[in-house]
Amino acid sequence: MDVATLAPDGLPVVGMVGGGQLARMSHQAAIALGQSLRVLAAAPADPAALVCADVHLGNPDDLDALRGLADGAEVVTFDHEGVPGAVLQALVADGVAVRPSPEALRHAQDKLVMRRALTGLAGMPDHVEVAEPADVAGLAARTGWPVVLKAVRGGYDGRGVWLLDGPDPEFVAQLLAAGTPLMAEQAVTMRRELAVQVARSPYGQAAAWPVVETVQRDGQCVEVLAPAPGLDPATAAAAQQLALRIAAELDVTGLLAVELFDTDGTAAGLMVNELAMRPHNSGHWTIEGARTSQFEQHLRAVLDYPLGATEATAPVAVMANVLGAAAPVAMSLDERVHHLFARFPDVKVHLYGKAERPARKVGHVTALGDRLDEVRARAVLAAGWLATATWADGWSPDDADARATRFPRRAVPGA
Amino acid sequence: MDVATLAPDGLPVVGMVGGGQLARMSHQAAIALGQSLRVLAAAPADPAALVCADVHLGNPDDLDALRGLADGAEVVTFDHEGVPGAVLQALVADGVAVRPSPEALRHAQDKLVMRRALTGLAGMPDHVEVAEPADVAGLAARTGWPVVLKAVRGGYDGRGVWLLDGPDPEFVAQLLAAGTPLMAEQAVTMRRELAVQVARSPYGQAAAWPVVETVQRDGQCVEVLAPAPGLDPATAAAAQQLALRIAAELDVTGLLAVELFDTDGTAAGLMVNELAMRPHNSGHWTIEGARTSQFEQHLRAVLDYPLGATEATAPVAVMANVLGAAAPVAMSLDERVHHLFARFPDVKVHLYGKAERPARKVGHVTALGDRLDEVRARAVLAAGWLATATWADGWSPDDADARATRFPRRAVPGA
Repeated sequence: MDVATLAPDGLPVVGMVGGGQLARMSHQAAIALGQSLRVLAAAPADPAALVCADVHLGNPDDLDALRGLADGAEVVTFDHEGVPGAVLQALVADGVAVRPSPEALRHAQDKLVMRRALTGLAGMPDHVEVAEPADVAGLAARTGWPVVLKAVRGGYDGRGVWLLDGPDPEFVAQLLAAGTPLMAEQAVTMRRELAVQVARSPYGQAAAWPVVETVQRDGQCVEVLAPAPGLDPATAAAAQQLALRIAAELDVTGLLAVELFDTDGTAAGLMVNELAMRPHNSGHWTIEGARTSQFEQHLRAVLDYPLGATEATAPVAVMANVLGAAAPVAMSLDERVHHLFARFPDVKVHLYGKAERPARKVGHVTALGDRLDEVRARAVLAAGWLATATWADGWSPDDADARATRFPRRAVPGA
Repeated sequence: MDVATLAPDGLPVVGMVGGGQLARMSHQAAIALGQSLRVLAAAPADPAALVCADVHLGNPDDLDALRGLADGAEVVTFDHEGVPGAVLQALVADGVAVRPSPEALRHAQDKLVMRRALTGLAGMPDHVEVAEPADVAGLAARTGWPVVLKAVRGGYDGRGVWLLDGPDPEFVAQLLAAGTPLMAEQAVTMRRELAVQVARSPYGQAAAWPVVETVQRDGQCVEVLAPAPGLDPATAAAAQQLALRIAAELDVTGLLAVELFDTDGTAAGLMVNELAMRPHNSGHWTIEGARTSQFEQHLRAVLDYPLGATEATAPVAVMANVLGAAAPVAMSLDERVHHLFARFPDVKVHLYGKAERPARKVGHVTALGDRLDEVRARAVLAAGWLATATWADGWSPDDADARATRFPRRAVPGA
């Protein structure tokens, strides 16, 4: 290890592209490891830029900015996928350790590349590339309506995803004309959504956390239940093995989150929805709920340290996102924190330093305990109080219309 | 709450005097609360200065530096007691919220002030102020030798403490001539040392963590066992009540650590050794071992937020300090971390970014589990590996000579 890459105490510097809440929470983990995370943030008020000592300002598509981030760092990694592959390739050509590699990261950047790579490896929804509006109808001829239309690159939290109840060639043509690469997927009938997180190091060591259930509202994760309640142990093991296999096949280094559709409760009924190669909202529960958090584990993995234990610290952990209030509220966030602490002294609060906007993720809370219904009620109430939002009314996997609320529904004339 | 005192997301800024590991770990807790700790550090390489975004450089006895720290902060608090009372009084006169108050903090700065304040409130070792060498002999006439000689102000980690096996008027006179205010205390025959931590808010809410046993080597804490093994529940409750009473009587805001001698296992046999009014080494186990860490709780207390739950997250937690190796070692700290992670994937590591010097606290580790002997072995081995030190050979409360190793023993001619 080159001395120039070492922090004052002889421990490595990690450069992270992006200054969002994932970088912010990674910095907390880096501090314990004797490190100080260096972040490339777009603006001084980014969540991580507010709390890190070593902040570079710049854009993730600017090679010079990335070179500045990499200078003296042991490794460069990511808090988001928005870095062009060509820029990363140039960084690798410089001799920088980029983890995950640009080749691996492509599978989290491009949904068609991911679908092609996982063919034969994992169950997936029926899907097509959309070069013209007729391709959507072609898929629907096989799967029926509705159909999920997706931007191949750049979508997240329900953005870049549309549920089409019937043919809408004008809308599709508009998107294509605007240069949005598209694909269409079968709208899978499912019982619920699951997620598995694994970490994998360059050495090839890999570790999986317990499988969780993720609960969505309007295309955005609002709750994570750990472990996924009532999941058949064989299905849980199959989901973990699937994630480990994907991590190995794609040569992922660092964290991999595999979002899954649980269609019938069996291993054969699992379908891969999305991949992310970084700490992920579905793993925030690990900060208190697992022996090693996803943030510490990501740092350990990209630095090729041996990985930490992933076992749960409590029978049940529930994470609920704090979403910006739908309308301005009289109570400041600080007042809401006061009231929350008084009501739930055991709920752990994580705020990201972000300005509130409707439905924007500004924080999360985690509750732990023995019984799912009780723990979940605390987490949802706590997040709801902080957000003064109404989504906390509860959601059930038995809700027949649950899928329909997952994506912003596009009204289609005549459908 | 004045807008000028708010972080960008409307949450308060806390100013902490001192940039050591306590401030470093407080920053980790502040991040979760949506805050960013502002520290007044003596040097850019101080543990907290390496990782905080908002670092003021200056000395804790410089009123202008303290005013800069306080400007725009909701409250000023401490990671050490080394701030002159007069400077703090001036800050209070400016209208700054200083927590704990200078009046409360005096009891952690001056051992004689503390002894006088606790008279009638708590059991304590017999003690005298030492104005001349004969005062030491006067105490010994009552208590017998050895006697513990202490600097009234400024000692920590065994510094400023001497065990005298017999009269040594020349040594005492030298110290007095050098301007060191002194006191002498009975060398208490004890079974072990305990510590209780409580937090108290300006509102008056207070919360205690489970009582722990602290294990010392050469005057320095090397292990903390949580909860204190085999402690009679009535004695444990009495210790907590004592700490809560002291916090209320001295009007402490923020954290209070009460170090106790356990002389006979009973409540009546508890004697107060020292007080600290800040996060404390005896509470590091709370980061993973309690629902709310001492660092989060200190921030909540000084900000007058409702306090967090203090219950343990596991039946047993053991914290072991990582002390700088006694001699230069071939393996870098980074290599040692690699090996440790491979051997103990579940042990949590906290490194402070400090250069290694013999016996210097450069980090700590925490292990959790069900059985004390097993958990303790892991923690001690892990800390020993990181430190490549030999103190990890084990210590037992049954060790008849344990007390004698607590302080650097001063050989006294003819004793």
